[in-house]
Amino acid sequence: MERLRKIGFSKLTSLEDAIKKLDSHINFTSIEEIQTAIALNRILAEDIVSNIDIPPFERAAMDGYALKATDTFEASLKNPKTVKLVGKVEVGGFSDLEIDEGEAIRISTGAAIPKGADTVIKIEDTDIKDDIITLYTSLVPGKNISKKGEDIPKGKKILNKGIQLKAEHIALLSSLGFTKIKVRARPKVSVYATGDELIELGNPLEPNKIYNSNTPMISNLVKMYGGTVIRESTLKDDKEKIKEFLLNSVKDSDIVVFTGGTSVGSKDLLPEIMQESATILIHGVAMRPGSPILIGYKDKTVIFCLPGTPVAAYIGFLKFVGITIRKMLGCLKLDPRTEIFATLKNDVPVSSMGYIHHLRVKIEKINNEYIAFPIKLKGSGVLSSLTKSDGIVEIPPYQEGLKEGAKVLVKLFPK
Amino acid sequence: MERLRKIGFSKLTSLEDAIKKLDSHINFTSIEEIQTAIALNRILAEDIVSNIDIPPFERAAMDGYALKATDTFEASLKNPKTVKLVGKVEVGGFSDLEIDEGEAIRISTGAAIPKGADTVIKIEDTDIKDDIITLYTSLVPGKNISKKGEDIPKGKKILNKGIQLKAEHIALLSSLGFTKIKVRARPKVSVYATGDELIELGNPLEPNKIYNSNTPMISNLVKMYGGTVIRESTLKDDKEKIKEFLLNSVKDSDIVVFTGGTSVGSKDLLPEIMQESATILIHGVAMRPGSPILIGYKDKTVIFCLPGTPVAAYIGFLKFVGITIRKMLGCLKLDPRTEIFATLKNDVPVSSMGYIHHLRVKIEKINNEYIAFPIKLKGSGVLSSLTKSDGIVEIPPYQEGLKEGAKVLVKLFPK
Repeated sequence: MERLRKIGFSKLTSLEDAIKKLDSHINFTSIEEIQTAIALNRILAEDIVSNIDIPPFERAAMDGYALKATDTFEASLKNPKTVKLVGKVEVGGFSDLEIDEGEAIRISTGAAIPKGADTVIKIEDTDIKDDIITLYTSLVPGKNISKKGEDIPKGKKILNKGIQLKAEHIALLSSLGFTKIKVRARPKVSVYATGDELIELGNPLEPNKIYNSNTPMISNLVKMYGGTVIRESTLKDDKEKIKEFLLNSVKDSDIVVFTGGTSVGSKDLLPEIMQESATILIHGVAMRPGSPILIGYKDKTVIFCLPGTPVAAYIGFLKFVGITIRKMLGCLKLDPRTEIFATLKNDVPVSSMGYIHHLRVKIEKINNEYIAFPIKLKGSGVLSSLTKSDGIVEIPPYQEGLKEGAKVLVKLFPK
Repeated sequence: MERLRKIGFSKLTSLEDAIKKLDSHINFTSIEEIQTAIALNRILAEDIVSNIDIPPFERAAMDGYALKATDTFEASLKNPKTVKLVGKVEVGGFSDLEIDEGEAIRISTGAAIPKGADTVIKIEDTDIKDDIITLYTSLVPGKNISKKGEDIPKGKKILNKGIQLKAEHIALLSSLGFTKIKVRARPKVSVYATGDELIELGNPLEPNKIYNSNTPMISNLVKMYGGTVIRESTLKDDKEKIKEFLLNSVKDSDIVVFTGGTSVGSKDLLPEIMQESATILIHGVAMRPGSPILIGYKDKTVIFCLPGTPVAAYIGFLKFVGITIRKMLGCLKLDPRTEIFATLKNDVPVSSMGYIHHLRVKIEKINNEYIAFPIKLKGSGVLSSLTKSDGIVEIPPYQEGLKEGAKVLVKLFPK
């Protein structure tokens, strides 16, 4: 065991290599068919091809009169022409009248163009007295008419597999008549915090103990990233107990997440448990905070052991667990975070070369640009360094920090 | 009625004035207390002040030995000093040993500092043989120790009323022992689409009809903005029926949303219904798309009648309904959309002065900046103009469009 602890960190894996190593152990979840109306935030598992034309029929793009364009030819304010009103058609309605030369029908925006008509003259370009309409402008055939299939022709691919569905996608799918659609099932995740020092919320705080904040944090991140938490618990530093929970969880979880006990102290039990019960892929990643991360798998379940300090656990989640959930879902965009460009307010030195650093910044919009203010902090346990900031700037390994005024890319915290 | 239709649009209200007019009719929802762990995305209804110190006790910031700093004075690689190992303290554990001169105790990161010790020497700066520890560096008192309350002192305000709770806030609240917190109740919203032309999803498409996409769109937007949909239906253009639904809905809804029938055609029944059954605040806003919007109230319920064309309804929601939901929730940030700066790819002319225009753009990250590509479209009914874009650029009234290369602010679609 002492040997295992020592070899654990003798070589840290780069973030890139860690993601590559993990990649081949991630499987898609199954496909399920659900009602379109309740598909908000789900990931589409099929390309969507329209099987109708939008608009589904030739319709008026303006309120006015449908008629033959030839009846308007040469009409102008000085040389008006006239036609006879022979009927009316409303949105959703239908007229079986066929328009002849010299005739017109009153039509509302969105209503079907009656037979014989090939143009719509706007109401503003006409006058009416009894049933005689005076036309003050000349129109070409097709004017103010939306052609069948003009917006979306039948057979056109309109949404790509792998997009995350928002209100506008659900509206588009509904307009095309898709009652149900295929999405990927939410990955099932078991979440455990380990540590003798942890007190469960709702109990009095004992001396030398702290409240567990990791399971509520990780479980909510799982939801934000599209997974579902099937089990959540706080465990003591008890090797046999933790092993039992791990082995039970892999039976029905796509992902198991532990926090705590991943480093090289005498109470860091996860490396040993993982070596005995699963296959270790990565132990130690060259990132700050979050380096003592341990990743492995058993059968088809991916197992993440994140550091117990909350900020390290948060960043470990974003870089590994979140990406894994979204890969299982077949997302086109694996990292859901929005990125903005900003100008750095202060110099930021880095403490140790060879690590990718995750700098927390607060952003402010000043004079038509974003300014990024580094949040000063001590250690990776200080949760307020997250709640005070808006996002993260990544400083690549082997870069000697960042200079005041540098243009940086800020990855905003997930929403 | 003809008169009402005509006066309706004789004067359009500016977007700013419309929002001001609406403001005094918006009431906060009630406050409810919920479990912190399930508070994701809810809006905090109280300032949070820490009632404990974080850390709650003096603890080791490194793995090493706790001892008296004076025992390390003048120690160096060339002049090492020694102390005697007298015990061990783990995270979550406790040692009742009191450290004396010449003594040290093995300590893990996060464990409580034993009495008598005032510093922690890192394990890397020592050697041990049997119970004799050799010290190779000199430390000041307090080194490698996290002081009680250092991260968050008791009594400090740590979260502001009105923020939207994400995983990191839930973690922070948990670490401070907040089992329950106060949030604002979700505004209750009734959603109706009106129009004889609308076919409900799941039914065959009849000639000259279209599928209703507005209720699924609006209902999902309500959820995204923090409201709850208590009722949702598609109604024919039947004045008495619509009026009945309106009057029933105001009894238990904070907000009622209609789409369709808001303009000045003969089937546009909402202006008349609203005049008879409620108080009209605004009819017609100087914005494109979305100008034929109608806003009023009855008792404490705000009523929005959005245009029936889907893109106009979407933008009307973002500018009015969404903001109203978030005002009722007491949000600090009323518009949840993320804004990014981008460079416009093409000239964009505007068709009519005096209106605020909502230009849909696709954004791409090219050479360290965002480029905004205007999405060309016809009319406000084309939903694919939303699904093809990433956000909206607002062109102020009385501005003659935008030039290629202009720096624009893109409001990304809500997530």
